[in-house]
Amino acid sequence: MSDYLKARLPRGLVDRTPAELKATEAMIETIRHTYEIYGFEPVETPLIEYTDALGKFLPDQDRPNEGVFSFQDDDEQWLSLRYDLTAPLARFYAENHEKLPKPYRSYRNGWVFRNEKPGPGRFRQFMQFDADTVGAPSVAADAEICMMMADTMEALGLSKGQFVVRVNNRKVLDGVMEVIGLAGDEKAGTRLTVLRAIDKLDKIGLSGVRDLLGAGRWENPEEKSGDFTKGAGLPPEAADVVLAFVASGADSAADTVTNLGKLVTDSVRGSEGVEELKLIATLVDAAGYADRVKIDPSVVRGLEYYTGPVFEAELTFEVTGDDGRPVRFGSVGGGGRYDGLVGRFLKEPVPATGFSIGVSRLMAALRTLGKMGVDKVNGPVCVLVMDKGPEALAGYQKMVAELRAAGIAAEMYLGASGMKAQMKYADRRNAPCVIIEGSNERDAGLVQIKDLALGKELSAGITDNAEWRAARPAQKEVARADLVAEVRVIVEAAGGVA
Amino acid sequence: MSDYLKARLPRGLVDRTPAELKATEAMIETIRHTYEIYGFEPVETPLIEYTDALGKFLPDQDRPNEGVFSFQDDDEQWLSLRYDLTAPLARFYAENHEKLPKPYRSYRNGWVFRNEKPGPGRFRQFMQFDADTVGAPSVAADAEICMMMADTMEALGLSKGQFVVRVNNRKVLDGVMEVIGLAGDEKAGTRLTVLRAIDKLDKIGLSGVRDLLGAGRWENPEEKSGDFTKGAGLPPEAADVVLAFVASGADSAADTVTNLGKLVTDSVRGSEGVEELKLIATLVDAAGYADRVKIDPSVVRGLEYYTGPVFEAELTFEVTGDDGRPVRFGSVGGGGRYDGLVGRFLKEPVPATGFSIGVSRLMAALRTLGKMGVDKVNGPVCVLVMDKGPEALAGYQKMVAELRAAGIAAEMYLGASGMKAQMKYADRRNAPCVIIEGSNERDAGLVQIKDLALGKELSAGITDNAEWRAARPAQKEVARADLVAEVRVIVEAAGGVA
Repeated sequence: MSDYLKARLPRGLVDRTPAELKATEAMIETIRHTYEIYGFEPVETPLIEYTDALGKFLPDQDRPNEGVFSFQDDDEQWLSLRYDLTAPLARFYAENHEKLPKPYRSYRNGWVFRNEKPGPGRFRQFMQFDADTVGAPSVAADAEICMMMADTMEALGLSKGQFVVRVNNRKVLDGVMEVIGLAGDEKAGTRLTVLRAIDKLDKIGLSGVRDLLGAGRWENPEEKSGDFTKGAGLPPEAADVVLAFVASGADSAADTVTNLGKLVTDSVRGSEGVEELKLIATLVDAAGYADRVKIDPSVVRGLEYYTGPVFEAELTFEVTGDDGRPVRFGSVGGGGRYDGLVGRFLKEPVPATGFSIGVSRLMAALRTLGKMGVDKVNGPVCVLVMDKGPEALAGYQKMVAELRAAGIAAEMYLGASGMKAQMKYADRRNAPCVIIEGSNERDAGLVQIKDLALGKELSAGITDNAEWRAARPAQKEVARADLVAEVRVIVEAAGGVA
Repeated sequence: MSDYLKARLPRGLVDRTPAELKATEAMIETIRHTYEIYGFEPVETPLIEYTDALGKFLPDQDRPNEGVFSFQDDDEQWLSLRYDLTAPLARFYAENHEKLPKPYRSYRNGWVFRNEKPGPGRFRQFMQFDADTVGAPSVAADAEICMMMADTMEALGLSKGQFVVRVNNRKVLDGVMEVIGLAGDEKAGTRLTVLRAIDKLDKIGLSGVRDLLGAGRWENPEEKSGDFTKGAGLPPEAADVVLAFVASGADSAADTVTNLGKLVTDSVRGSEGVEELKLIATLVDAAGYADRVKIDPSVVRGLEYYTGPVFEAELTFEVTGDDGRPVRFGSVGGGGRYDGLVGRFLKEPVPATGFSIGVSRLMAALRTLGKMGVDKVNGPVCVLVMDKGPEALAGYQKMVAELRAAGIAAEMYLGASGMKAQMKYADRRNAPCVIIEGSNERDAGLVQIKDLALGKELSAGITDNAEWRAARPAQKEVARADLVAEVRVIVEAAGGVA
């Protein structure tokens, strides 16, 4: 056994590098700007809330005590790390509703936590970016949020056709349940199984969904091997209604709405949901977003608190899946109307709707498309320490101070190693150049500037532009007085000052 | 008993408003820029770590199981929310040291958590902004970080004389302990009591410190009432040495260092610490920071992991204290050298030094000085809904779309209320103006623009500039085609577009 503690992170948690941080920052700034142009204002809540204030709305109801990180306070009340940004917003609105404008339009980004089994691309801490309108009963608020999501995707560099915001309505789903005899509290479990089956359409296709609506489904259906997922146990004619519902999407929103209307004629709630979808489609069409915001009956959204329209932003281009086959990139966010969530705290019902972007997942998608170009972060100019005498050190320090004053990131090497290690250090930091001043140079009032960015280009074989090389040699000797001006040229050529 | 859940936050946690968020964002951006100019690069670690990786270094050793929020993972290992950004950095460096540049210069800001009794200005979740140099044994690294802190304070708008970065050295403190017979592991408890006594100098003065070095101190010493804090139980001659140490600060760093040197002549470690302080003072003086970075023997810093130089950034201007009397604003951050923290994970010792800014506390200070001007956040232009017919709604929606396309934050009212409530809403949102289009205006191709910012100025009595008022009346009727141009003038006068 070692005497030393092993440095390691708990599963499903990751450190973030400079390139990721810069890219995330740029992405967040773009989303924020879009939301502000739409009139949403920022608000942030703490990462810890009372467990009962968050409620239990996670999709994984099989493990109701898991899913969230919880701990007891000194007074024995249970606290939890938030698992999304919606439940805390409901708490915030209920606590402050008297002094907030109505409707209350707000946005926030921040970390959320899921105490779940991590997997590839599935973390226990991840970032969401939400926008919500609380206090607006009309589906005009839902339509607006969907259009804002489309604008956000475009602001991030995605073009029309690379994404779609898909819209469905829980009321229509409820209507379908009613029609097949699954209304009422005692059928809640079966309804959830049906919803989960629909939600897997993308992955398992219509026949897989049919299995899950009936007796159940094998992980490998052909060999009947792997895990067996128990199904909803619906009779075939009920399963047919659900499958017709799932397949009722048509090319035009008008046709989709007509198809849905026929399925739920006998349900008041279902028909209400169809009317809402119709109004959303009209608003979206009038505003010219019909090519990006579409009615799609297969959208479910796992969270239990949704009560009306539900949305999902999906990237429609293909990437190579784990099995080497092309797959759609898939969902990068979603949301919906949650009219009951604030009402848990207040006597009057409070309508609310919102959308949540999965920041890390969207970032991964943008990187795939080369839309987030920050893969390399330029480091500081490095002044090498050739000589450790007090006069020399003061001179290096002064160079660094002059560069910094000119807005150029710079540092004096602070380690204990020699020239070779210092060059390696500068290289690892992506320094655009290093400054070298030995005693000869100091006596002559000169410094050597070694252009590392150019050096890399040369060694990579980019040698065809002789004129350009002549103007920017990989190492040059300049007058000490010209240091800042000469370094500026190199730093700008390498991609700019900090 | 109510059927409704009470919407409330756990103690010591707060929500953050738009003005606070904007101000924090601006402050963080300034700090980040300063650190990057100094050649530090960003890195972020998760908020959750293994409890043993964090270690128990909080000052409140009386309650070793408290202080942090902890919970067990599925595999029964203990996890904790980080209580600072230093212990996670040590874990990160140890885990990734093979691929990191050496020295490794990094910065990060983020939330940290303390499971402590909250109080005024004392929260259980707060933000720190740290910079650290890992792998540089020389105190040149400490001096650099202190000077960077001074530059940061100035970049944030503080002027020379409003702040000081005070520097001490744990080795000198250790030397004093040796001299008075408090060396060795078995005296660790008493040493901590002595450190805590020194740390309270600002609050309780020299006589209070003397009490705490001896038998103990009453909360109200004159009436011997209130809580009694047990002292270190030092004999008077030992207490005198400690008090001489605390009082050994002189006007010049050279004199302070000479005073300290005399006190610890008999301690090798103490003398080494004095030499380090001397070198820091020389570097600071040579770089022209002697007026902002000062040697001060009263600096202690509560955290146990410090091994060499310790720093504290203190704001020296006075504010009105809780008791109505003027007090110094006090500490807004600090740090020091922690050579043992990374070494817990690795075989080789790894020197490290860093500084942590208390973001919320510094923000409070800057607001006191009026340096963070974001007290009001401009809201969006509000298009009122005068008419709910589909044609009218489409028209309002189009106005909003035109304004947004021109980069002006705008929204159509989405609530269900009438004109008066809509005006109140616009006012609460700090809308620069509202747009009103009834059926008469629509038929005539006109809109009314009501300038709310100007309206407020007029009602506040700012009426003396007749010419300006004539150019910008509080309400005007303009051609629908001129909407964007006219609104832009008002929005810019109110402080700019989003």
